[in-house]
Amino acid sequence: MRIKKIMTGSAAALALAGILSSTMVFAASHSTPESAAAKARQSQMQLYAHNLGVLGGMAKGATAYDADTAQAAADNLAALVALKQIGYWLPNSSTDDMEGTAALPAIWQAGSDVGAKGKAMADAVMAMQAAAGSLEGVQASIGALGGACGACHKAYRKPSN
Amino acid sequence: MRIKKIMTGSAAALALAGILSSTMVFAASHSTPESAAAKARQSQMQLYAHNLGVLGGMAKGATAYDADTAQAAADNLAALVALKQIGYWLPNSSTDDMEGTAALPAIWQAGSDVGAKGKAMADAVMAMQAAAGSLEGVQASIGALGGACGACHKAYRKPSN
Repeated sequence: MRIKKIMTGSAAALALAGILSSTMVFAASHSTPESAAAKARQSQMQLYAHNLGVLGGMAKGATAYDADTAQAAADNLAALVALKQIGYWLPNSSTDDMEGTAALPAIWQAGSDVGAKGKAMADAVMAMQAAAGSLEGVQASIGALGGACGACHKAYRKPSN
Repeated sequence: MRIKKIMTGSAAALALAGILSSTMVFAASHSTPESAAAKARQSQMQLYAHNLGVLGGMAKGATAYDADTAQAAADNLAALVALKQIGYWLPNSSTDDMEGTAALPAIWQAGSDVGAKGKAMADAVMAMQAAAGSLEGVQASIGALGGACGACHKAYRKPSN
């Protein structure tokens, strides 16, 4: 499955390089792998928050409950939590190492239970996905989900002020 | 499927409100729906770019090809493109309306083909997902994928300088 190919056509190579440099935003182009990691982490957290916000707004009555939208938001969370976090948790990408992150070094240190906390969040997402078909289900499930978010933030995210 | 429930226990309501306000980052709490929309769009674009960057790095030889990582990045793109973009494309969230976005008003105007461009990107992602098991497959598929990104950016994203 691991095929190495030397590009023999310089025109093709130049065309490829042109496409890569001109039409994509490459994290690697203008930043370090560590700052790209932080951006990817923050983007994923933002999408969690966005979809949680949809469900939270319904749970507390700020927006009308809509079953299709609630289920879509819960399904989104399930898809997000299942993403392979390639290059997210690089060494030397904590608050001790760089600006632009709130990820505490404890994530990477001995005794870290960040994996267990991630698993707890995934479990809470699955519960929400199963329950989102009713407002009562959303209300019954959102506390555990918010709690899973908060437990990890409390342990591993630098407070914002 | 649409069940309305009046919360009768004020303690439960307060507990829920406390969880919602204290442990989650709610887009709605500190921003307008339009600025939350822009943040969600940008976060999704960032995750596209992150995973494209993994594949692009391998395609151009900047990083070693690894079949599992390439497939994971392609699978991530497929999951991302399938997300329901709840509240992303609100009216009045273009460059004509607000700071903090590069989304041109043409997205929302008559004649917009943004849906077709999104479909073209989804098709290119599916092709990458089918091809990512070999370096040759990645190299053969990344041009169309980058092209789909670029076509939409050219038409609908304000240039950055």
